Amino acid sequence: MPTLETRKRDKHFGQWFRQILIGAEILDYRYPIKGSGVWLPYGHKIRRHVIQLLRDLHDTTGHYEVQFPIMVTETNLRKEATHVKDFENEVFWITHGGLKPLKIKYALRPTSETAIYPMLKLWIRSHADLPKKLYQIGSVFRCETKTTRPIIRVREVTTFKEAHTSHATLHETEGQIQEAIQIYRNFFDSCSLPYLISRRPNWDKFPGALYSISFDVIMPDGRTLQIGTIHNLGQNFSKAFDIQYETLKGSHEYIWQTCYGISERGIGALLSIHGDDNGIVLVPSLAPIQIVVIPILHKEDQSQIIEESDRVAEKLVNSGFRVEIDKREDLTPGAKFFYWDLRGVPIRLEIGPKDLQKDQVIIVRRDTLKKEACKTKTLSSQLSKKLEQITIELREKAWKWMKSKIYRVNSLEEASKLMKKRAGVIELIWCGSDKCGHELEMRINASLLGIPADIKEMVKGKCIICNRKAAKIVRMAIAY
Amino acid sequence: MPTLETRKRDKHFGQWFRQILIGAEILDYRYPIKGSGVWLPYGHKIRRHVIQLLRDLHDTTGHYEVQFPIMVTETNLRKEATHVKDFENEVFWITHGGLKPLKIKYALRPTSETAIYPMLKLWIRSHADLPKKLYQIGSVFRCETKTTRPIIRVREVTTFKEAHTSHATLHETEGQIQEAIQIYRNFFDSCSLPYLISRRPNWDKFPGALYSISFDVIMPDGRTLQIGTIHNLGQNFSKAFDIQYETLKGSHEYIWQTCYGISERGIGALLSIHGDDNGIVLVPSLAPIQIVVIPILHKEDQSQIIEESDRVAEKLVNSGFRVEIDKREDLTPGAKFFYWDLRGVPIRLEIGPKDLQKDQVIIVRRDTLKKEACKTKTLSSQLSKKLEQITIELREKAWKWMKSKIYRVNSLEEASKLMKKRAGVIELIWCGSDKCGHELEMRINASLLGIPADIKEMVKGKCIICNRKAAKIVRMAIAY
Repeated sequence: MPTLETRKRDKHFGQWFRQILIGAEILDYRYPIKGSGVWLPYGHKIRRHVIQLLRDLHDTTGHYEVQFPIMVTETNLRKEATHVKDFENEVFWITHGGLKPLKIKYALRPTSETAIYPMLKLWIRSHADLPKKLYQIGSVFRCETKTTRPIIRVREVTTFKEAHTSHATLHETEGQIQEAIQIYRNFFDSCSLPYLISRRPNWDKFPGALYSISFDVIMPDGRTLQIGTIHNLGQNFSKAFDIQYETLKGSHEYIWQTCYGISERGIGALLSIHGDDNGIVLVPSLAPIQIVVIPILHKEDQSQIIEESDRVAEKLVNSGFRVEIDKREDLTPGAKFFYWDLRGVPIRLEIGPKDLQKDQVIIVRRDTLKKEACKTKTLSSQLSKKLEQITIELREKAWKWMKSKIYRVNSLEEASKLMKKRAGVIELIWCGSDKCGHELEMRINASLLGIPADIKEMVKGKCIICNRKAAKIVRMAIAY
Repeated sequence: MPTLETRKRDKHFGQWFRQILIGAEILDYRYPIKGSGVWLPYGHKIRRHVIQLLRDLHDTTGHYEVQFPIMVTETNLRKEATHVKDFENEVFWITHGGLKPLKIKYALRPTSETAIYPMLKLWIRSHADLPKKLYQIGSVFRCETKTTRPIIRVREVTTFKEAHTSHATLHETEGQIQEAIQIYRNFFDSCSLPYLISRRPNWDKFPGALYSISFDVIMPDGRTLQIGTIHNLGQNFSKAFDIQYETLKGSHEYIWQTCYGISERGIGALLSIHGDDNGIVLVPSLAPIQIVVIPILHKEDQSQIIEESDRVAEKLVNSGFRVEIDKREDLTPGAKFFYWDLRGVPIRLEIGPKDLQKDQVIIVRRDTLKKEACKTKTLSSQLSKKLEQITIELREKAWKWMKSKIYRVNSLEEASKLMKKRAGVIELIWCGSDKCGHELEMRINASLLGIPADIKEMVKGKCIICNRKAAKIVRMAIAY
């Protein structure tokens, strides 16, 4: 078991994050290819729950899961001009099959528009085929030239959920964008994660999109992490890939498209934001183990306590909880607490000789570390309530913390100062012009996240750069 | 909906297979890269059930799921000499990241030994870390030079389950091989698939293995398909990757390893073997839809019949069946029967005016196409029984058919004749020498599948080639 001396989440976030990844057996990033990691058994179970949640949210809203190949031909990758321009510098190219050069190079998909859309051309014939809402979960690849960070900036994104929808009208895509926003809200709510929804500035939208909407979260070090993106593609790709449908009247029109994605960055965010100096703290619905039972053994009564612990654990399993009982004999109770706290198990039950006498169990919440006795009889229902409470309180705490990191500022000086110390997100008034936007980024030395899409607030004031009358709030931050 | 004129499974198996893949919306292989296909929504749901079954079988036998990167460095791919020799002619090579050449080439993993074993070296220190049983499910890649066939011979195997186990002794690996055989038996039994288990000859074992055991099935065209492989790797890889553990006595020894894999070929086999001229026939546990309810509408009583159909469907959903109700108004009942038969839904329920009067439902089994009336009251329990029956009878039928395709032969002439007409599998007596084995393959123009590992039979006779006394049965076939 590693000793984690520097394990102070807020002081050394980067180190803390790397340590909990290996310490809590989430992901081992010592794989010999830069920016690539191995999902370890415990982390993989969290990943399974996250994937299941994504599937449920998409399946129940009329999305159908498909699976496309990982390789894309160079010809298709190059079809949408803006798109390839942005990606070609970070695409991995397959040039050889065995010892022979390939006639056409293949790219490892950096995202799957260029894999999926040639097939949509075969599948979509008439208005009756629309809308068509597909999604897939798999790997995408970027040859990142920036510093890679496990889960956060990687060369193989192993858990990319991307949805691609096709529609008859622009109006319908706008409705779809709203549905996507709602699905993503539900997803992050289920992860107890807070988020800011912003419409990205023109120069930072998805290559080939009309506009992009992003979900960002503030990480413990004050930088923002983009954890979800939603794009209205208009007809840019349908024109590039010649995807037309026959209308009710018999004419042919290009389809309208949206796409939206969420990756394992969501897992990175939930580990980081709910975590503390003792390790990670898991939301009960995503926890591989929701309750760990620890028999507190003294010299006497050992067999009785173990029997009672087994009884309790079995009862909880039968009630539908995910339960583990830790009977290891070579570890002290304290070492076991450390072990399970690091792994973020939401609830620990301690059963000792006194508890046996009193017909009770000690419940310890991982998020608050608070202890409480509970009569064995009412344990099941008490635990259901506690797990629900943990979910809600984690969410409330995370939202409260994030909101405390958002600053409304009126001067460039104040803005720069806050960004210099990575205070979180700043909101200021901007005229909306690209010119002022670029100057803002340069002078404050931060990224423009975009215009809020989650709050509707009437503001009046002047652009902090050009001093013209302006009515737009804009968010800025040091972004990952 | 495609009209499938050539849809005779046994006469034109290749065509039939391609037609049902698109017709039943399993997989679209028109993707612009040779040997690559797209899992369509219905096929993807079958795939989900198959993956869940594999997970259950591995999770409950002490295997832990992990996920490794898809790229492997050239250095690691080359570490085990025999291994790379067999694979290097069909590995896809990544040579460029963006516009720049990579310093070290990356291979798309053709199988994951060379990805996983460098990490085992980090994870395994002492006997306490053993045994370690890991598995993962994902894509592997082969630049096939032979004719590709959807699902059966592809360049991206999208659904490769591979398990990798590490042990302290050779003896333990032998036990693990037995466990793996049992897991694979359970898997194929759940798919109602028959199989032959054979120990591959030396020249056809997995590159780097001590020996390989394979599961083969006879396809409708008489060729065999390898649907599962199990390998004892001995210490070949642990020596190449320097994976040692500290024994109880404090010395250091190389670990002993096994690996075993199953791919989407299993899905290809179950579609082919249970299918018929009307389409596929799904095993109930793997069917996305187990029961389809079809209201038989006449001019009168329409609303009553639809109401009753809804009631029946709802009741069945509540009983835990996966149910669909087909109320499409633009299709005749006959067209609906065709549609759902093609997709292999195990049971069809028809509800017409007469049934309404008699308080009954007509049950039609997809596998036998037999009809039967059933009182609405007892429907749920009747359907449970029927689904169970279908599973068992599909299995029995498939085993019976396969056994009828196995011939014990005594002469080369007879053997050649059977192989020429692709009659199935032949069994004959062989001395076991590589020399006679190669000559057998050449003279009969078929592949040596290996020595039976599923039957223990004492035979006495003479090698069909060298005429020496021999006690080994060997299986041969035209293999995919």
